Amino acid sequence: MRRRPILLIISILTVAMATCTLGSSGHLQAQVLGQPLRSQDRDQDRAAILTLLNQQQADWNRGNVDAFLSGYWHSTDVSFSGASGIIRGWDAVLARYKKSYADREAMGQLQFSDLEFRRLGPDAFLLLGHWHLTRTKGDVGGVFSLVWQRLPEGWRIIHDHTSAVPDAK
Amino acid sequence: MRRRPILLIISILTVAMATCTLGSSGHLQAQVLGQPLRSQDRDQDRAAILTLLNQQQADWNRGNVDAFLSGYWHSTDVSFSGASGIIRGWDAVLARYKKSYADREAMGQLQFSDLEFRRLGPDAFLLLGHWHLTRTKGDVGGVFSLVWQRLPEGWRIIHDHTSAVPDAK
Repeated sequence: MRRRPILLIISILTVAMATCTLGSSGHLQAQVLGQPLRSQDRDQDRAAILTLLNQQQADWNRGNVDAFLSGYWHSTDVSFSGASGIIRGWDAVLARYKKSYADREAMGQLQFSDLEFRRLGPDAFLLLGHWHLTRTKGDVGGVFSLVWQRLPEGWRIIHDHTSAVPDAK
Repeated sequence: MRRRPILLIISILTVAMATCTLGSSGHLQAQVLGQPLRSQDRDQDRAAILTLLNQQQADWNRGNVDAFLSGYWHSTDVSFSGASGIIRGWDAVLARYKKSYADREAMGQLQFSDLEFRRLGPDAFLLLGHWHLTRTKGDVGGVFSLVWQRLPEGWRIIHDHTSAVPDAK
């Protein structure tokens, strides 16, 4: 009879601590700050973004700018900064691409390189890199800073700041 | 005598739940995802960044580039992207500023405008905006994308992508 309360206490405490652990681990962000994400999680997020980036490259290289744009957040809040200032909204970013690269010759063959990921939080990455267009009318290239965010629809570019670098031609 | 185990159970449970609550609230990031930060927290972070940005503007306008650079992460990993490509490291970013803006006349009077904050996580912000230099030798201006991160030393710019915008002169 004397053991029962102790067993009861242990049982209740076990349930209480299990609930507590579940509550903490339910927050993905709790795994991020203070200590790094497990490498598996890190790899999965980067792999997902790389897949989208490779798809964008492939879409561009078959001349499909609309498909290329599917890597961007489909929102009026997505933004694109560069030598033309700040362009806001998915439709405006698409229009800018179509104006700047009116045909296959202007689009050329796109290649991304020197990618560098920096995690900014549980649901955000900064991705630095170089872009290069091989074209019969003359190559162009430069650098980009992409801010990726994990959205309900998946990882998307929420901001793109791109510069042409004359020496990168 | 029969009440004691019940009181003991209640006492232990109270302590266990209090510890659990403390453990959760100890993670600031737990307040961020799923539900927005309390507006006070949001305002405090933005206010801290705005203070640094105003200080940078004041430092620039008294010709102190070194002090201006104190808003940047003092690390070999800080980066600056633009028409010159990607520059890495605090010393290299400082050198780039000193080369591009060799004297007070080249520096002119700096003004930031149209600031737009986007929280990327509990410890990161994207800040879009315009910059303008009023100069006797001719004004220049453009747009910037700053990635701010909360570090042990405070909020710092970990990446800056800046473009000159010809029409912004």
